[in-house]
Amino acid sequence: MNKPKLTMPKGFKAGGIHCGIKKHDKDLALFFSSVPAKAAGVFTTNKACAAPVKLTRNVIQNGILQAVIVNSGNANAVTGQKGDHDAIEMARITAQALNIDISKIAVASTGTIGRRLPMQKIAPGIETLADKISHDTLYDAAKAIMTTDTFLKAVTKSISIGKHTITISAVAKGAGMIQPNMATMLCFICTDISINQLLLNQTLKKSVDDSFNCITVDGCMSTNDMVIIMANGEAGNRTIESVDKDFEKFQVELDTITKELALMIVKDGEGATKFVQIDVSGTHSREDAKAIAYNIANSNLLKSSFYGETLNWGRIMSAIGAVDVKTDLDYVNIHLGNIILVSNGEPAQYSAEDAESLLKQKEIHLKINFNQGREKATVWTCDLSPRYVKINME
Amino acid sequence: MNKPKLTMPKGFKAGGIHCGIKKHDKDLALFFSSVPAKAAGVFTTNKACAAPVKLTRNVIQNGILQAVIVNSGNANAVTGQKGDHDAIEMARITAQALNIDISKIAVASTGTIGRRLPMQKIAPGIETLADKISHDTLYDAAKAIMTTDTFLKAVTKSISIGKHTITISAVAKGAGMIQPNMATMLCFICTDISINQLLLNQTLKKSVDDSFNCITVDGCMSTNDMVIIMANGEAGNRTIESVDKDFEKFQVELDTITKELALMIVKDGEGATKFVQIDVSGTHSREDAKAIAYNIANSNLLKSSFYGETLNWGRIMSAIGAVDVKTDLDYVNIHLGNIILVSNGEPAQYSAEDAESLLKQKEIHLKINFNQGREKATVWTCDLSPRYVKINME
Repeated sequence: MNKPKLTMPKGFKAGGIHCGIKKHDKDLALFFSSVPAKAAGVFTTNKACAAPVKLTRNVIQNGILQAVIVNSGNANAVTGQKGDHDAIEMARITAQALNIDISKIAVASTGTIGRRLPMQKIAPGIETLADKISHDTLYDAAKAIMTTDTFLKAVTKSISIGKHTITISAVAKGAGMIQPNMATMLCFICTDISINQLLLNQTLKKSVDDSFNCITVDGCMSTNDMVIIMANGEAGNRTIESVDKDFEKFQVELDTITKELALMIVKDGEGATKFVQIDVSGTHSREDAKAIAYNIANSNLLKSSFYGETLNWGRIMSAIGAVDVKTDLDYVNIHLGNIILVSNGEPAQYSAEDAESLLKQKEIHLKINFNQGREKATVWTCDLSPRYVKINME
Repeated sequence: MNKPKLTMPKGFKAGGIHCGIKKHDKDLALFFSSVPAKAAGVFTTNKACAAPVKLTRNVIQNGILQAVIVNSGNANAVTGQKGDHDAIEMARITAQALNIDISKIAVASTGTIGRRLPMQKIAPGIETLADKISHDTLYDAAKAIMTTDTFLKAVTKSISIGKHTITISAVAKGAGMIQPNMATMLCFICTDISINQLLLNQTLKKSVDDSFNCITVDGCMSTNDMVIIMANGEAGNRTIESVDKDFEKFQVELDTITKELALMIVKDGEGATKFVQIDVSGTHSREDAKAIAYNIANSNLLKSSFYGETLNWGRIMSAIGAVDVKTDLDYVNIHLGNIILVSNGEPAQYSAEDAESLLKQKEIHLKINFNQGREKATVWTCDLSPRYVKINME
């Protein structure tokens, strides 16, 4: 794969190295702003959350961050008080190496659950890494947060606000354990926009709700997931203080980036061979639409048939009927691409050949319209292949 | 496999034939009582439930049945009004063939969703079958309700009540689409006990709640599942009219039978190579315990590792933490067989070798104790193997 064009926004540096947690690959990443940045975060709702999640959820309450230190290969989850101590140590060593205050440092980890971090490798690693970060080595940081990912997930985009160029650079990782109602994976977003913290928090929450919280690979909720945004104001724009045109422009761009990364995660789902978009519309609430879309997206039966390039729409009806929401199945229409499979709750006449050729595509699009309300939701998922089992056997 | 010793209780006949819905195997079964029997049923809660489910849920409100006609190979689900009509036709033809009233006939179907029943094959099939049923051909009936099942599921047991021998004969099918809060599969129970209908209903609901509603294969809820019991009173015991010693004895026996069949279903889970029992205890409510046990049992990550004979207990903690119930993970103990993996929420020291040898067994036993309340629940499941995907690809 060609290296994507990745640079950091003004005043930011990033980088990644191999410090020895993994056998060969990069396993330690650092994101750094030369000045304190406004910051916001979204975290897993898993009660067995990892030590770094607890630490970062705590420090981010100040709304200010200057660095994020991340390791892969070890989740530092279910490691008890010793794990909490290790996470604090990661922050302390980073603070020392960068000569900034420990209260401005977020920590993240991803990898195997239940093992102590090899601090004797991480400690010198952080010191080495602090000297290596630069404006142009975001690629290395993106590499260093990968676990079972098969491709790198990173984006740099710019927009104009007034006469100023605003840059947003974001990296993400995630391939399994992807599930709704939480931050779903690791994602770090750096931008040089100047914006107040409350609005930054609001944009992030909205973006995550429409992207990372609309995907599923295997329905499993992770212990470690977080999305962090830092905005350091170095672009020099007039600080965004209200929901105005500039705010909207930034929101749109952030939405584009988080959606792009979220879809990369689904496409890289463990063992995935198909990408599936499920649109549910015509329900009385967005929650109903999302619950139905997720039940379809998480059905092992359906995911297996996507893999097999066959589709029994009866399994779709069955997955819909199993959800405890008020809907009348007598008005439901189900489309596969432009082919109508079910019309007003009953089987429609369609060409099996046409359906087959759509199922052979890499991307599958299901549309379910209940024709009862005005709400809707979209969920993205992948198929279930024998390789998923093989990856997770170990 | 040797034929199990199966006979029908007094006054009952059963049988099964091949009528042509499937290519080769038996696909039509009939259960018949020479006198009207007290009857009760438990049904899927899936809103997209099949035509025979709607029909049978309706007729059973009278509390009286005399026959159950069942086909496999076609679920008669999501078949619209024409499907409803076909289910009624099955009942009508059965009534005629047995010379009994249509209001005393239950209908069940299992197989592919969304296709019309081949009534031109089923109609003569019912007539042939009505002549073939006997006291000793329950085996054929059990064969005829199978779909992806790899072995037959049937039990005949007797108990004494007073001077009378009470016989209970039951058959079940189900290998995929097994999930909580519904009848989960097909099961037909015939007994010659004399019992009033309200108590019969009560025993069935309790038995199902502790057996079929405690198993999961893939978390998918079916459109067709039902459990039906018929009690024709031909054993001649004094009719059970209250919750007395005789009632308790019957309940215990029925519980044994339904649990036996439920465990057969899990062991025959599509592609299953392992049988997994999950005991959750020490919670504040049985619902909490069951929700946690089910989230562990339905985790594709964990099911894949059972298949791989490896176990990351961190994934267990993660599956526990993802459930939205009030629990404190600081007191939780997790056992694999007699090995303690997690003690008071933190990793315990144990021999990896010992754990490995337990994971290589055909049956795996997990115990999770929250040490916070007095409630508990057990759920049984199987592993997720690449073969599950292959079976459901088509």
